[in-house]
Amino acid sequence: MDAIFAPRSVAVIGASSDPKRIGGRPVDFLKRHGFAGPIFPINPKSPVVQGLTAYPSISEAPETPDLAVIALPAPLAVKAVEDCAARGVGGAVIFSSGFSEVDSAGAALQARMVDIAREGGMRLVGPNCLGIANVRHNLYATFTPGVETHLPRSGDVSIVSQSGAFGSYCMTLVRMRGLGVNIWATTGNSCDVDFADAVAYCAEDENTRVIMGYLEGATDRDRLIEALELARAKSKPVVMMKVGRSAVGAEAAQSHTASLAGSDAIYDAVFRQYGVYRARSVDEMFDVTYACSGSSSLMNGDRLGLVTVSGGVGVLMADEAEEYGLEVPALPDHAQKKLKEVLPFAGVRNPVDVTAQLVNQIDLLETNMDVLFGDGDIDGAIIFMSTVGLVSDLNEAIRSGLERSREKYPGRPMLFCSLTEPEGRAAYERSGFIVFEEATRAVRAMAALRYFARSFQRLRESDPVPDLPKLSPLPDGMVNEIKAKALLAEAGIGIVRETLAETPDAAAAAADEMGYPVVLKIASPDILHKSDIGGVALNLRSAEEVRSAGARILKLASEKVPDARIEGLVVAEQAAPGLEAILGVAQDPVFGPVVMFGLGGVLVEALEDVSFRVAPFGPAEARRMIDEIRARKLLDDFRGVPKRDIDALAEALARLSAYAAHHGAALESIDVNPLIVGAQGQGAVAADAVIIPAGPEAP
Amino acid sequence: MDAIFAPRSVAVIGASSDPKRIGGRPVDFLKRHGFAGPIFPINPKSPVVQGLTAYPSISEAPETPDLAVIALPAPLAVKAVEDCAARGVGGAVIFSSGFSEVDSAGAALQARMVDIAREGGMRLVGPNCLGIANVRHNLYATFTPGVETHLPRSGDVSIVSQSGAFGSYCMTLVRMRGLGVNIWATTGNSCDVDFADAVAYCAEDENTRVIMGYLEGATDRDRLIEALELARAKSKPVVMMKVGRSAVGAEAAQSHTASLAGSDAIYDAVFRQYGVYRARSVDEMFDVTYACSGSSSLMNGDRLGLVTVSGGVGVLMADEAEEYGLEVPALPDHAQKKLKEVLPFAGVRNPVDVTAQLVNQIDLLETNMDVLFGDGDIDGAIIFMSTVGLVSDLNEAIRSGLERSREKYPGRPMLFCSLTEPEGRAAYERSGFIVFEEATRAVRAMAALRYFARSFQRLRESDPVPDLPKLSPLPDGMVNEIKAKALLAEAGIGIVRETLAETPDAAAAAADEMGYPVVLKIASPDILHKSDIGGVALNLRSAEEVRSAGARILKLASEKVPDARIEGLVVAEQAAPGLEAILGVAQDPVFGPVVMFGLGGVLVEALEDVSFRVAPFGPAEARRMIDEIRARKLLDDFRGVPKRDIDALAEALARLSAYAAHHGAALESIDVNPLIVGAQGQGAVAADAVIIPAGPEAP
Repeated sequence: MDAIFAPRSVAVIGASSDPKRIGGRPVDFLKRHGFAGPIFPINPKSPVVQGLTAYPSISEAPETPDLAVIALPAPLAVKAVEDCAARGVGGAVIFSSGFSEVDSAGAALQARMVDIAREGGMRLVGPNCLGIANVRHNLYATFTPGVETHLPRSGDVSIVSQSGAFGSYCMTLVRMRGLGVNIWATTGNSCDVDFADAVAYCAEDENTRVIMGYLEGATDRDRLIEALELARAKSKPVVMMKVGRSAVGAEAAQSHTASLAGSDAIYDAVFRQYGVYRARSVDEMFDVTYACSGSSSLMNGDRLGLVTVSGGVGVLMADEAEEYGLEVPALPDHAQKKLKEVLPFAGVRNPVDVTAQLVNQIDLLETNMDVLFGDGDIDGAIIFMSTVGLVSDLNEAIRSGLERSREKYPGRPMLFCSLTEPEGRAAYERSGFIVFEEATRAVRAMAALRYFARSFQRLRESDPVPDLPKLSPLPDGMVNEIKAKALLAEAGIGIVRETLAETPDAAAAAADEMGYPVVLKIASPDILHKSDIGGVALNLRSAEEVRSAGARILKLASEKVPDARIEGLVVAEQAAPGLEAILGVAQDPVFGPVVMFGLGGVLVEALEDVSFRVAPFGPAEARRMIDEIRARKLLDDFRGVPKRDIDALAEALARLSAYAAHHGAALESIDVNPLIVGAQGQGAVAADAVIIPAGPEAP
Repeated sequence: MDAIFAPRSVAVIGASSDPKRIGGRPVDFLKRHGFAGPIFPINPKSPVVQGLTAYPSISEAPETPDLAVIALPAPLAVKAVEDCAARGVGGAVIFSSGFSEVDSAGAALQARMVDIAREGGMRLVGPNCLGIANVRHNLYATFTPGVETHLPRSGDVSIVSQSGAFGSYCMTLVRMRGLGVNIWATTGNSCDVDFADAVAYCAEDENTRVIMGYLEGATDRDRLIEALELARAKSKPVVMMKVGRSAVGAEAAQSHTASLAGSDAIYDAVFRQYGVYRARSVDEMFDVTYACSGSSSLMNGDRLGLVTVSGGVGVLMADEAEEYGLEVPALPDHAQKKLKEVLPFAGVRNPVDVTAQLVNQIDLLETNMDVLFGDGDIDGAIIFMSTVGLVSDLNEAIRSGLERSREKYPGRPMLFCSLTEPEGRAAYERSGFIVFEEATRAVRAMAALRYFARSFQRLRESDPVPDLPKLSPLPDGMVNEIKAKALLAEAGIGIVRETLAETPDAAAAAADEMGYPVVLKIASPDILHKSDIGGVALNLRSAEEVRSAGARILKLASEKVPDARIEGLVVAEQAAPGLEAILGVAQDPVFGPVVMFGLGGVLVEALEDVSFRVAPFGPAEARRMIDEIRARKLLDDFRGVPKRDIDALAEALARLSAYAAHHGAALESIDVNPLIVGAQGQGAVAADAVIIPAGPEAP
């Protein structure tokens, strides 16, 4: 991969003398932007291209280049790859279109090209891509107009984009926003080097501090997750734009890209699970990347301090902080008293409103920061200065005050938020501060610094996937709920006490033995939604009630689903009143078995209040999954109902995920609905379950 | 009010020779920024102030000024108001602090000052404010440093801010964003002219097209609502920042402002009800204001067209559009075919992805717009041009194409979205286009244009509050649920058939007469949460079951609430299975009786999935209230349950609101929980209700 992203020499195959043409641009860029190594234009018709000696073919180049840039029509590009492989070129970036994005013939051509490259030990970027760049090395193996007249400055942000158009847009935007770039890669058809490879390369790259990604769809779950885990292991924030979260967006994406996208909700879950920050706008993507670049610290705790010259904006930031999961703790009384002493008009709770008075006593800012960081023990601060940043003769005093605070309290990020003139802003940035103009954007950026700190911390905490004992094989087809629950019980998931009775009389006898109250349900592998056909009776309190309900259920089942195989009646203990959770497993086309969690019956579905994780995972991850749903507070003391057994619920989710991962693609789906979550210490039991093995066409 | 906002002459009382001092700044600004009328500095010690003839007192000024600016310590300010009133001055802007914001003595001083002004027929702005401005008239009756060196351009945005700091910030920001301003007002302590007055003035002002407001807390419900309705009647968008939506934000706001803020959720409801756009960030506030300013049309339908040179950004915009309630409809087949003919590589569904190819065939943009507006019948379009707006020689061709489309399809807004250089951007703006750099922000601005179009349309639709027949007076104290429901039935709200029985035997007899199944509930004015003490039995099917359940309920009630007055048992028909809604009325300290709506029992509370409106309102407003909750889809065909009777639900909400408004402050609260909403055409009936009259201390 170094041959591609940090080559010592570059050949441009299909090099044009016209610096505006696709084959001319990389020659022009490499030359003009100062690529240090030799550049070999390859052009059978012209001995000189843009002032450089050109060669008729790669085999005639004076030395073997590390990287070849290929700007030729598709069939010729394949030939060029063949020549490069023969010559021992390390890698190629292929601009050419006419491959898998067009039709199956193109896809076949592309597959042949990949075979040739693999055989020759060569890596390929593209085809149908806009190329790559390494700003530090002045390497511009691209034809994007975004680097024609201006270049981004060299820095620590690396960019990986599946889309050339979006990548090109980013290249201009980083420059306009003043971000420093290291590697920039567009992957196009991703025939060999794909999004995951490029992210992994940037994760290993010592000059990259933060990775910005644009993803339309992944194909290889394991390699994507490995790349994300690598970035996390290296403590490198990954900021991701993945479009298509809405129904209409997904449909538009489908028409825009042929890649099988998988469910957007699952991408979202994967990003949470592996600590990727998902940006929902270009602004957010660049804001978060900016905050993570440079030397600023992540935020190592939840406590946010806000200093402001406008009480209203202080409240606005506090609103935003709560929404993004940060605390804005009231300062301790003694700290508030200290602040009142130096600024009698100040709001001292936190947000600390120093009012316009600060302008007359600029040295008080440092005192304020001391109180916030020292007595207030905050983990990060946003200093909102409204228009004060425009006043150039105040900026130096403010900045040096903040610098001293930073020295005294290292490891706690400070974001400066003010309207500024470009030079004022640059001075703060040179001093290592992140500068925002808008208050809520500063808060969201701070929340992202907290997000990554949490994510990197998690990696240091052990959260093993539960070990499962030896499991029975999956059934061949549908089984009744008793068998389904028995299989889950093998994985250590709690189930209700229950038995199968063939007749109403047998059910009554079983209930007598079990003790009342009991639940009676139709037992059939062919009836999934039992209550929809009247196939469930709850809270039966005598043998007589059981017999009468049993007869009714059997009659209804035979009337409403005449073809169903009826195996009898399930007699189950009526679980102690608990909260009903839904646990599910489904197969995602990209990510394989995924686990779903929700609370509260039919409302869950109406509200789409569910969370997902890819299997398998440990109980700590399960708790985060539980914490994501809006109905979360039902698990705490709520309206007199005591706290539920969240440990048992998390354990059940983790065990279900291990079970799903164990069976992998052989499983189509599992529904545990409901899992009755008892009071704390009382466990959680599956009251009903459906397991559907994959059909014969499954792998 | 014209004396304040469009005075012909201004006196500055407490005028200072030092243009940096509070009393010197307005003199400096008025003089330097070209206020056309006479300026009378009032200063007993100096015959000349900043080169102008000064007068020892207002009584000695050569003529009576329309407006006096008062920059004196509090007690002297009161004296100055007295002198102004005596002289017949029309209005005063009072900078002075030391009034109600400090203590009760200050409040008394302020009240006296208001009395003096009222007696003299004079209006007051402030005290403790940063003043006002009228940019068109070069009137700067303010000491904000925001207009010291630079001025905003004159335009159609008016700004009303309760906070001086925020107002000052806005004054700088409008300038930096290039927005044109007409009136700017900070209201400070709002002793006379308050937020509502200033908004109403701007609504009437012919040079104002859009009003930007910053509100911390209202005091007078009726006047605020009148001002908002006036703006709506004049088709002037109101874009509002109201901070304190989070718990911590509300607490911080409480410590920041002494004003009784009322519940943030109610402000939110008021804004929706009266068509105010609530911005959640400064960016959003300015973006929406910008989109509403100038000559661009509102969006008169939901259909959004997206044209883009980046498929990915097209999808991103489609995602955002769905979230903000806009449609991105697929173009009809014949329209897609037309587009394919001119641009074979284009994505043609909508978003229309014209790809970078557009750059080579720039005239195709107009063809595209014709297809979108004509065949596609879209109501507004966003044209995302990525970095193309930076290429100055393309901009003119793009712009003139868009201009021709605008002429052909008037009344349909077009937002141009691209990175631009300042001059390129200015050219689009001069031509009347709104320009955004970020795609999601353009979508949100377009959604705001739709929001206001809907709001203005509503004003033209009749939605009368239901007429109620003559109602019984409210009870003196708590009453049992039967009486509560009887009161609601008077207002035309459906209730279940039910009767009160004193004993279990009487209950069984009543049930026999009513027919089974029945519900049995404890009847007591002292037990609000009946099910919490086991005071409810559902689905009883025989006299025996009724007797046994009745005995159990009476026993539990006497054990668990020994002091409760027990009136017997409610025997009610078991309502046909329906969806459970919660309807409530509460008193808001600012807005009086407000109505709440939610669906789905205890989960409603856990999820805070409720909507509010201030009473009274009509059924159409009730439907919008219903549409706001996340669980809304439970009312449609959902999982085989047929569509619910939404008309009946809306009618019940409107009638409850009329009932609440009728009783006004005499009512503490009403809970209708549940209201059983039957299938379409089957109505909705209250199955339980609590009415709590206000305590004796209520007005």
